[in-house]
Amino acid sequence: MQPPLSSWSEGRAKNAIIDFVERVTCKGSPHYVRRPERIAVFDTDGTLWPERPVYIQAAFAIDRIKLLATQHAKWTEAPLAQAIIAGDIEKLSTASERRTQEILAWTHAGLSADNFEKIIVSWLLTAKHSTFGRRYTELQYRPMQELLAYLRINGFKVFAVSCGSVEFVRVFAEQTYDIPPEQVIGSAIVTRLEFEDGKPLLVKQSRIEGFDDGVGKPSGIRRFVGRRPIFAIGNSDGDQQMLQWVAANDGVRFVGLLRHTDPVREFEYGGNWRIGPPARVLLEARERNWTVVDMAKDWLRVFSERERESP
Amino acid sequence: MQPPLSSWSEGRAKNAIIDFVERVTCKGSPHYVRRPERIAVFDTDGTLWPERPVYIQAAFAIDRIKLLATQHAKWTEAPLAQAIIAGDIEKLSTASERRTQEILAWTHAGLSADNFEKIIVSWLLTAKHSTFGRRYTELQYRPMQELLAYLRINGFKVFAVSCGSVEFVRVFAEQTYDIPPEQVIGSAIVTRLEFEDGKPLLVKQSRIEGFDDGVGKPSGIRRFVGRRPIFAIGNSDGDQQMLQWVAANDGVRFVGLLRHTDPVREFEYGGNWRIGPPARVLLEARERNWTVVDMAKDWLRVFSERERESP
Repeated sequence: MQPPLSSWSEGRAKNAIIDFVERVTCKGSPHYVRRPERIAVFDTDGTLWPERPVYIQAAFAIDRIKLLATQHAKWTEAPLAQAIIAGDIEKLSTASERRTQEILAWTHAGLSADNFEKIIVSWLLTAKHSTFGRRYTELQYRPMQELLAYLRINGFKVFAVSCGSVEFVRVFAEQTYDIPPEQVIGSAIVTRLEFEDGKPLLVKQSRIEGFDDGVGKPSGIRRFVGRRPIFAIGNSDGDQQMLQWVAANDGVRFVGLLRHTDPVREFEYGGNWRIGPPARVLLEARERNWTVVDMAKDWLRVFSERERESP
Repeated sequence: MQPPLSSWSEGRAKNAIIDFVERVTCKGSPHYVRRPERIAVFDTDGTLWPERPVYIQAAFAIDRIKLLATQHAKWTEAPLAQAIIAGDIEKLSTASERRTQEILAWTHAGLSADNFEKIIVSWLLTAKHSTFGRRYTELQYRPMQELLAYLRINGFKVFAVSCGSVEFVRVFAEQTYDIPPEQVIGSAIVTRLEFEDGKPLLVKQSRIEGFDDGVGKPSGIRRFVGRRPIFAIGNSDGDQQMLQWVAANDGVRFVGLLRHTDPVREFEYGGNWRIGPPARVLLEARERNWTVVDMAKDWLRVFSERERESP
């Protein structure tokens, strides 16, 4: 068996993770946390997989919108939809996750929840990331997979927290990180029970029920999990309140912030992209001594094996 | 080790449960269901614990309202609150679960989620059921505990589904059935992140976010679990759509309906109570050959050991 976290280089981040896990799991430790309370939350876009040049669910929405646009004239009235149809990635990248989610909601109003899931599964089989030229399901971060495995072995239950479409992330998180759908928290398209030939099925409406980035994340986690986590990691200012909320809990807590610092293997954030580098949260992380993970320095590998074979 | 379901008498209901579990768990069976899809949902009030003379969360709300009423003059304007303060159980029993929930929401607006939990925990330590004279945490159904254990051993993940206050049910379901908070689905009081002396905490508002009995249950399950369950059990007409939705899934499904037929050990439903016997759903259960569990006939015991010692 490989030692835990073998894709993490020796250093402060790796030590902080191991130190935290040992303290909360060692019986007799004053920081011991019983198993059902070992809840870990991971932000999704940018923390578990790349979020550039656009969120994966936005890439999916683009393909759907293009496919369906000819049937829906009114879509072309919305500037964001126009950008999508025109393939204007820059404009898309400036749209909020919530706005993208609303546009996405249009593309499956009237579909049954089951059918929508099938569409996602089949899209993931063929769609490729524009920068890496690989299928999205091959772009999970290897060190994060190891971190999840390490936490699970130590009795943690891991939740993925997204403000985006939970339907999409559920399919994706299960395929990439083996996170079951019931452990994915996020916004969702409202469904309504309808009967078709006497058979009940849930039909998607075009309204979203969910929570926003930032202050909405702690409420969302509380709503779904019912407990305050003891481990949280994110990568953007939108994760700041989640990290603050977890950090402010009693006892030993792990709070981490991933920085995209790797222009060679992934991305180095900066410039004018909306999906930019963390600013406020990075200052706070430094001030409060949270664990800052530097992708370039702390990760020996970013993606799975294949990156070595075909760089 | 005791054989499974030892508090269930030999008969159709017990056989149906065992038959279903064996079919979906036996590798090579055409009905085999892989582990992550073995999702079971249980209604709560009346299915996992008694719901008469009032829902347990209503009993809790009564105590809270009485305690806090002197400080909130406007509460006494609402007829339901008047009934609560006057101890008018009959009037309360005619109120919907949702309405009771709204009144309950008043009693903890402004509290932090953590503090509210502490109040519930401490109430459960002393409050007693008016009919049985026992603490509520001693009133879980023994055959249901065995059923949950049997399902879990066979790789099922069990969810409790309530339209009522998820905050209350979460504390209660963990103490009585070892169901963790994240596997309790229900309505919830909206929380908002606020800062107190720079420390973030979630403060309850007086608004509810949730779903209604009946058609709301399938949507709620889908929202939280992300999958259609393969096992469902309920006890009232409010569970009908949930049972229909599960029954209509492809493959072998278990759909059960518990009937309260036991005036000696628990209750025999009938008469004019709002919390009455299932009507529409019982007809459908018979028509579609769902498993009807008759408390008086199918359960050798209703509660835990103590009922023998102190009848």
